[in-house]
Amino acid sequence: MAVIIGAGNVASALAPALETAGLEISQIWSRNPDNAARLASTLKIPAQPIADLSQIRQGEDLYLVSVTDDAIRPIAQRMKGFGGLWAHTSGSVDADVLSDITDTYGVFYPLQTFTRGITVEMSEVPLYIEGSDAASRQSLLEIAGRISRRVSLADSSRRRRLHAAAVFACNFVNYMWSVADDILREEGDDISVLFPLIEETMRKMEATGDPAAVQTGPARRNDKGVMDGHARLLSPEHSELYRTVSEKIINRYHPNERDQL
Amino acid sequence: MAVIIGAGNVASALAPALETAGLEISQIWSRNPDNAARLASTLKIPAQPIADLSQIRQGEDLYLVSVTDDAIRPIAQRMKGFGGLWAHTSGSVDADVLSDITDTYGVFYPLQTFTRGITVEMSEVPLYIEGSDAASRQSLLEIAGRISRRVSLADSSRRRRLHAAAVFACNFVNYMWSVADDILREEGDDISVLFPLIEETMRKMEATGDPAAVQTGPARRNDKGVMDGHARLLSPEHSELYRTVSEKIINRYHPNERDQL
Repeated sequence: MAVIIGAGNVASALAPALETAGLEISQIWSRNPDNAARLASTLKIPAQPIADLSQIRQGEDLYLVSVTDDAIRPIAQRMKGFGGLWAHTSGSVDADVLSDITDTYGVFYPLQTFTRGITVEMSEVPLYIEGSDAASRQSLLEIAGRISRRVSLADSSRRRRLHAAAVFACNFVNYMWSVADDILREEGDDISVLFPLIEETMRKMEATGDPAAVQTGPARRNDKGVMDGHARLLSPEHSELYRTVSEKIINRYHPNERDQL
Repeated sequence: MAVIIGAGNVASALAPALETAGLEISQIWSRNPDNAARLASTLKIPAQPIADLSQIRQGEDLYLVSVTDDAIRPIAQRMKGFGGLWAHTSGSVDADVLSDITDTYGVFYPLQTFTRGITVEMSEVPLYIEGSDAASRQSLLEIAGRISRRVSLADSSRRRRLHAAAVFACNFVNYMWSVADDILREEGDDISVLFPLIEETMRKMEATGDPAAVQTGPARRNDKGVMDGHARLLSPEHSELYRTVSEKIINRYHPNERDQL
């Protein structure tokens, strides 16, 4: 039996996955009782939704803390001396934030983007595991192995680096798409006209495994006429971003010409 | 018969596509004769590689100018009064840069990223057409229709906007991936560990058609602890980019909290 602490995007993806992997979810905590109830109701065997940490039952197999990074420490303080096997799901928080709760703790970090209402094939999601001792590590690896085909051990340093890289590769990429969508909507187009381009960009990068080698575009060519024209066309907010990213690309591919910008 | 002026990434993709569409390529010009010869040799019916604009034959069906934006005008100056149907392939240059050459001219803009050695399915590439008069427009539409299923008319204003959006959606996205790859290589990982994340990010954006609605990550949550940790982990060059993009996301999703950054 497992207790899920949190009912956000990550918790909403992991709770059903843990259930499918054979762990019954006994309780789901959220500060917001509606969120706990909503997630509990999506399970085959309904979990008990709770909004008070003091209601959490002792003696379960796993306590999974899946809340925003800033909320992990306050929760750990409240649960001092509780015992059991605890893991958080953060890419950036050290495992030992949980050490006041129990001696057996670790990290269960899914390297994926989750949005409520959008189903992700969990068997393909890379899971990075850390444990405070051999037994905790083994338990977490065993549970992870029932969920995903891509389970690895990662210490905090590697996990932080994976998370920072993921922010560029996922969150910042998505933001670039939202800027493209903004630009297109000003004349009645939208992001869908770029789908073939977006798919080819990804396909090319994955085929080579080397994004730096397949970089194209005005900044890659240091084509100042095009860059100036784009900067004039864009809103001040988008134009500033355009210049910053273009300068980075020029710095990389034309290091001796950057003073001309 | 068509003449291709240029032998770069775009010319290298369009020349075989035009040949497949039934237009014989008679000549390929490049300032660099080796590039012209290389592209000419990839065709089924070899074209004549030339390095001197004065060797271009008159009376062909199409003259396609596929060079960097800054090089189009000087070429047009050299070809004054030549006549025929001319089109350039740029997203950002006005069609009438070709008006000194001929009265019948236009634009043949493929909204795609091309890299030499990587084959693109041309039938799916959106082609945006502009023509100086009805006949030029019709000829270019007819040729485009033999190459791609996605042909549209677009005036210069719409084409510029498509191009600027494409820079964000393709070039800047690829650069974000190259930064992620840099970060991962510092501890022996590489971009391939992020492929499931990258694919899911794209899948989710395309499924909703609304990147702004599916934005996730530390900046979306305004999670300052994570952002500060990442900024400390990264090189100064990457850290500056991290802060700029994060600030843009915070400005959009937390407009009243940006002063705290």
